[in-house]
Amino acid sequence: MPQLHKIAIIGCGNWGSAICRIVGENAVKFPDLFDKCVRMWVFEELVDGKKLSEIINNEHVNRKYLPDVKLPENVLAVPDLVESAKDATILIFAIPHQFVAKTCKTLSGKIREDAIGVSLIKGLSASPDGSARLISSEVRDLLNGKIEIAVLMGANLANEVAEDQFCEATIGTKNKKTGLLLKLLFDTGNFRTTVVGDLETVEVCGALKNVVACAVGFSDGLGYADTTKSALIRIGLVEMIRFIQYFFKSTHLRTFLESCGVADLITTCYGGRNRRCAAAMVYTGQSIEEVEKELLNGQKLQGPATAAQASEMIERANLLDEFPLFVAVHKVCKGQFKPEQMLDHIRSFPVETIDSMTFLPPP
Amino acid sequence: MPQLHKIAIIGCGNWGSAICRIVGENAVKFPDLFDKCVRMWVFEELVDGKKLSEIINNEHVNRKYLPDVKLPENVLAVPDLVESAKDATILIFAIPHQFVAKTCKTLSGKIREDAIGVSLIKGLSASPDGSARLISSEVRDLLNGKIEIAVLMGANLANEVAEDQFCEATIGTKNKKTGLLLKLLFDTGNFRTTVVGDLETVEVCGALKNVVACAVGFSDGLGYADTTKSALIRIGLVEMIRFIQYFFKSTHLRTFLESCGVADLITTCYGGRNRRCAAAMVYTGQSIEEVEKELLNGQKLQGPATAAQASEMIERANLLDEFPLFVAVHKVCKGQFKPEQMLDHIRSFPVETIDSMTFLPPP
Repeated sequence: MPQLHKIAIIGCGNWGSAICRIVGENAVKFPDLFDKCVRMWVFEELVDGKKLSEIINNEHVNRKYLPDVKLPENVLAVPDLVESAKDATILIFAIPHQFVAKTCKTLSGKIREDAIGVSLIKGLSASPDGSARLISSEVRDLLNGKIEIAVLMGANLANEVAEDQFCEATIGTKNKKTGLLLKLLFDTGNFRTTVVGDLETVEVCGALKNVVACAVGFSDGLGYADTTKSALIRIGLVEMIRFIQYFFKSTHLRTFLESCGVADLITTCYGGRNRRCAAAMVYTGQSIEEVEKELLNGQKLQGPATAAQASEMIERANLLDEFPLFVAVHKVCKGQFKPEQMLDHIRSFPVETIDSMTFLPPP
Repeated sequence: MPQLHKIAIIGCGNWGSAICRIVGENAVKFPDLFDKCVRMWVFEELVDGKKLSEIINNEHVNRKYLPDVKLPENVLAVPDLVESAKDATILIFAIPHQFVAKTCKTLSGKIREDAIGVSLIKGLSASPDGSARLISSEVRDLLNGKIEIAVLMGANLANEVAEDQFCEATIGTKNKKTGLLLKLLFDTGNFRTTVVGDLETVEVCGALKNVVACAVGFSDGLGYADTTKSALIRIGLVEMIRFIQYFFKSTHLRTFLESCGVADLITTCYGGRNRRCAAAMVYTGQSIEEVEKELLNGQKLQGPATAAQASEMIERANLLDEFPLFVAVHKVCKGQFKPEQMLDHIRSFPVETIDSMTFLPPP
């Protein structure tokens, strides 16, 4: 009998908890493939005087981060990070980006060398030389530099996934066999996954969408039309495609039509907090830092940070003319442009089209 | 000196009136290319006791269909259809689909054989044998069977275009020279156009988007999540691509990333009346005909009609399994499915992806 895959989820926030429901149920559904026990690393804290890990293990609910749904009984909360990941062959990372370095350094040398990592972390990382790097690559490099890594992204929100709402996700992996395995681990009737080889596009879309959402937020804040909003989403999508083509080389146009692409972009540009805070910037006249303080309790928005990083790469590559929307968003966030100047800046360049781009042929 | 292009706009509803502002101003802007006088056929009617054509020619406002904006003084309202189109080298059609047959038959034999037709009409036509046909082809065939035809579509609404809101449009033409000419005629700083050769996709997207908007409306009416909405938009987009591939052969994936594709789809799925009426069907429990009567004064929605026509083609081609969303929308509109069954039907097929599709290579 072949060895069963042992699963560990690194992180127990609301996304980690939502995904543990799916993974926990699928582990039971495929007993020939997966060890039934799914371990979840829980950063220990006290909730109503009880340890969170004990609440999860006794009551099967994450009372702090996802209080309204039952977690599967085969999910075991483990407060010790190294212990949670020990022997795991599939490590699912569902932690905020700012905890990646510390978490991975603790795990380095303590995990199986043949493990598969699955990053659910959205954002854009930076190499020591300042160039962009995938967060999934950062995870791999911090762990041991050779772990196989995949990503899962898409138009899905933890609370809606936890309610079993119909939605989709995209798995990116270079390894077809891994793709089949992860589809069995993540796919359900209401959480529908597709697998693509174009990992870079899957991951980077999840970061760049927030820049586009800021542009849409400025437009909404200024009271511009609905068709202006969809023009900005489209121009932003074309800049996302162009950015990934320039800086990550291996993109396929088809990937943008998966959940990680156009669907996640739409969700974020209509409902996300980057859009909301950007709109608030316009009608309150506050800086982005003041809006973050007031609306997000000081948490940082991802859109302005990603716009800054993308703009730096764009400027260094001498490509400012190719990315008027990204550059304008950055300048508005920095207070170098008034929000009203965003459209003037975009207008001063030819209309965005992908006609002139070249793409890899279909596989 | 080369002959100047004479322009006629066939139709003076709100879209014809909005576009005459753009075309009228560009005709003045490029005096070496266009005759300054732009004729607009006006279906004569009395407004406050005055003839509409006289109001337009004296007051330069279309008091009935676009009362809040000034029309250019070089736009001449002409109540006689044949007279309006006489000698025109560019004929812009901005009439509802149901008036196409009568209008074109009246013009047949009375227009220049070398004229270029530009169809702004959205919808899907039917050949005498019941198979789908482009409305632009119908226009050409009814006129003389040989006029060169182009289309202009996209995420733009007459009232927003008339307010000079920033938005986009896509011109589809098989003739590059015509594309350059039409870009000069239609493009402005706030009405940004791109030109693609893939006329079929440009036109058919404008019809199929309304089917997807119905699916989104049912989902909204049932109170489903935001991520369900974007999943349906994405699945619908994939079915649009697949449909155009099967039935019109010549599609390019890039065209779906123009304004006529993803941008118009987004606008329609968030703001359009097909979405609104489909949602109303669900929460009132009324039939589509009852909703049309109540919310649209008896006007017909395009989504249910297009869903019926598409479903017939899909069934005849034995492709029901490839279009679960289109088929489900049709069945809900016909009362054969309850709205709640739409997702069950979609769920019973593999997740929609374009991985397996083949596309024409870039030009």
